[in-house]
Amino acid sequence: MSNTSGTTPNVPRRLAEISQWDIEVDIPIVGFGGAGACAAIEAADAGAEAMILEVASASGGSTELSSAEVYLGGGGGTRVQRACGYSDSTENMFNYLMAAGGDLADEKKVRAYCEGSRAHFDWLVGMGAPYKDTEYKERAIMAPTDDCLLYTGNEKSWPYKNHADPCPRGHNLEVEGDNGGPLFMKILTEQVEKRGVRVEYNCRALTLIADDEGEVHGLVVRIDGEEKNIRARKGVILCAGGFVMNEEMVKQYCPRLKAGSIPIGNPGDTGTGILMGQGAGGALINMNEAFITLPFYPPSSLTYGIFVNAQGQRFVNEDSYHARIAYQAIRQSGHGIYLIVSADDYEHPKFLNAEIVGTGETIEELAEEISLDADMLRHTVEFYSKHASKGQDPLFHKSEQWLKPMEPPFAALDCTPGSGVIYAYFTLGGLDTLPTGEVLSMEGRIIPGLYAAGRTSCGVPRNADGYASGMSVGDATFFGRLAGRAVADQPSRS
Amino acid sequence: MSNTSGTTPNVPRRLAEISQWDIEVDIPIVGFGGAGACAAIEAADAGAEAMILEVASASGGSTELSSAEVYLGGGGGTRVQRACGYSDSTENMFNYLMAAGGDLADEKKVRAYCEGSRAHFDWLVGMGAPYKDTEYKERAIMAPTDDCLLYTGNEKSWPYKNHADPCPRGHNLEVEGDNGGPLFMKILTEQVEKRGVRVEYNCRALTLIADDEGEVHGLVVRIDGEEKNIRARKGVILCAGGFVMNEEMVKQYCPRLKAGSIPIGNPGDTGTGILMGQGAGGALINMNEAFITLPFYPPSSLTYGIFVNAQGQRFVNEDSYHARIAYQAIRQSGHGIYLIVSADDYEHPKFLNAEIVGTGETIEELAEEISLDADMLRHTVEFYSKHASKGQDPLFHKSEQWLKPMEPPFAALDCTPGSGVIYAYFTLGGLDTLPTGEVLSMEGRIIPGLYAAGRTSCGVPRNADGYASGMSVGDATFFGRLAGRAVADQPSRS
Repeated sequence: MSNTSGTTPNVPRRLAEISQWDIEVDIPIVGFGGAGACAAIEAADAGAEAMILEVASASGGSTELSSAEVYLGGGGGTRVQRACGYSDSTENMFNYLMAAGGDLADEKKVRAYCEGSRAHFDWLVGMGAPYKDTEYKERAIMAPTDDCLLYTGNEKSWPYKNHADPCPRGHNLEVEGDNGGPLFMKILTEQVEKRGVRVEYNCRALTLIADDEGEVHGLVVRIDGEEKNIRARKGVILCAGGFVMNEEMVKQYCPRLKAGSIPIGNPGDTGTGILMGQGAGGALINMNEAFITLPFYPPSSLTYGIFVNAQGQRFVNEDSYHARIAYQAIRQSGHGIYLIVSADDYEHPKFLNAEIVGTGETIEELAEEISLDADMLRHTVEFYSKHASKGQDPLFHKSEQWLKPMEPPFAALDCTPGSGVIYAYFTLGGLDTLPTGEVLSMEGRIIPGLYAAGRTSCGVPRNADGYASGMSVGDATFFGRLAGRAVADQPSRS
Repeated sequence: MSNTSGTTPNVPRRLAEISQWDIEVDIPIVGFGGAGACAAIEAADAGAEAMILEVASASGGSTELSSAEVYLGGGGGTRVQRACGYSDSTENMFNYLMAAGGDLADEKKVRAYCEGSRAHFDWLVGMGAPYKDTEYKERAIMAPTDDCLLYTGNEKSWPYKNHADPCPRGHNLEVEGDNGGPLFMKILTEQVEKRGVRVEYNCRALTLIADDEGEVHGLVVRIDGEEKNIRARKGVILCAGGFVMNEEMVKQYCPRLKAGSIPIGNPGDTGTGILMGQGAGGALINMNEAFITLPFYPPSSLTYGIFVNAQGQRFVNEDSYHARIAYQAIRQSGHGIYLIVSADDYEHPKFLNAEIVGTGETIEELAEEISLDADMLRHTVEFYSKHASKGQDPLFHKSEQWLKPMEPPFAALDCTPGSGVIYAYFTLGGLDTLPTGEVLSMEGRIIPGLYAAGRTSCGVPRNADGYASGMSVGDATFFGRLAGRAVADQPSRS
């Protein structure tokens, strides 16, 4: 079942049984994605000797596969936010992210993130990340241009807009299209190399080394087929990604992701770091939660449509972020999720892969084609249109911008999970950590010597309902840095 | 944060550091509720020396606080099922329980449970548990009489009725009212005592004892203020209940239970066994899931009503089991869950503690009092009534038995979470185990010497949506027995 090797990584090797150290370093870091890179840079800048252990043959991780958008703001606004006319207070950003996390929010992390967010933007700029002082104003999943700032979450949507003043916080690199990851990781990789941080590629982390009190002193890795014991003078940081590529773990912890169609991540997202940390006593939280998306825009014109469930009822404000739509869709009773649009608003969706399964000059005709109750669907559409003509949505408070009466002919896109439509997903659960990356046990004790960041930990993004693009790379790089700094500040163990 | 003591139970003590054993026994069992009692009886009957360690001053656990209903059937029917005219096939019961678990179901456990269920009933009868060969035919949470058999889940409700032929499987003791727990535990306690099983009350389990390969050899307990090392010649069984009484754990793992108002369980349900098992490398699964209920019946006449959400839409078939109603209710968008009934069908609900927050001779009047959109509510009621008059519910397929047109005057009961209405709950997550009780690590390895049953493990009941009364005591006693037998069959470790 383990994806790592015959050796199960769950049980730490006992310190007392380690007869020799093959490598000694202040801070071994497992994983060279966004979190690991930032941890290494900060550790080096604080004067510590870091070393990165990467199972692949190159840096990158899932950050490289992403758009590398970062979700940042607060403190009066980042340079780009201010240039675009937005002054974003820390408190406003905090209120938004707490609402986004809902019952699942980690207030300490949200607080740290909002307070350090603007400085983190400046730090990324200092590393060499290019951001234009421009805004992309269309409704989009990511900017298709090299513009920087855009709304990437539910900031303007009910109920979130009741909790905080809407402000765009997605920061896109100055790269044409959905293409920021490679440049972003190239920049971070060069910064790591510039600092002379030792990197071992093709190096598989096998298990931690802990003493009998549970303190972590190092780890065992395999390099060129040989096991090596690496001593951590200060502490080990696990930045080995999430577990979306570990089918068994997904089945065990996120069984409802069966509704998903495409995992998002790199092949190394097999939960290695999570397994190692759990073996050392780390608590795993939020393991059932995931990002899941139904990317129905662009084109943004489809936002004029309405989503209905198998009962022919609306269930969400369609101006919500695409992941919120998916989150609500997979929770509906019965079988059938449809996006109903007026033909005038229809354009072929860019990413959705949904089929048109019904069309009609009348609602009755459409209802028959998609086997919904015609009375219900008619009432749903008529009720919606009646209020939309007045700029209102009394049920789900969709923004006026996206409200207009629906006009025949109609079309229905099949968004039913399992129909072939895209529901892409990745996991959001992992090790419970403090903002410093310190890993906690179930009783809330700190496990000495063990740190985690990125999707090996459970971070600021906690569920699809309140997700915004840029939260993952934002969180991974921000808390990767905090962990690097926190471990560097530890005394060396003799 | 720990509710157990200053000593954190998470890290097993090292076998190599145990200088003496204070007690040696084949099978120490932590917890004397339904699971622990059954494990001890089976172990003793298989010739092993069991010992029960109970933190309270008496046996009972949460089983004693419950109605002690057991959910049993299959194999052509239990004695009571057959006497009442039901022949319940194992396959039919299996199909039902697999549908009830949905994506979360554990097929191995469901299979074992269904195959052994009828024999388990006979075993309980052999222990002395009295069951009348009668059926209670009203819709109820538990029988208020001493009748035995009743429908206690969603067997007759959509969508479950499409997966298996409805059959009642709740078996109620021959005791008047909701009162089976004390008698049930008295019977099991006497059976334990009769076998000469040693029981230590007021005995707090502190931590497991494991060797460096992770095998569990015993545990440390505190008796009369003194720590004692107990050696397990065959294995340790954890039957220490769930974690609903551990506020920190609930907040960490089940944050959405904030919607609940009353935890169900005994004060010892603090997760002790779960923490100990996790410390020894056990995987915790389903930690976010819970039983949660909105006990709106009896009176069953309220089932003629309709539940609506803040949008004035129905969201569930009201003939569902009360926990399924709660499960769906807490997932609705917006703030407001109401049970709308015709005054003719209104009787004061026995357990619900919901206030009538609106009445009206017309839907408009009612809608205004509860701040719902009148058009929506009118359409919902009219649509429902129109089809109900034909014995149909095209949206949620409520059974014809509970369908009739709604007539003014109307009343609305406030069932909004947090309004004061009862949402009672307990946890359903715990250690991942095989049907034998063997505890599994995250990689699916068996942890030698460690077993769990009852709510310390994650059992057959996996979520509120598919829950049925009797599943928990049924599961705890059944898998308690299997664990007792499995450990007894182990060779003694020298």
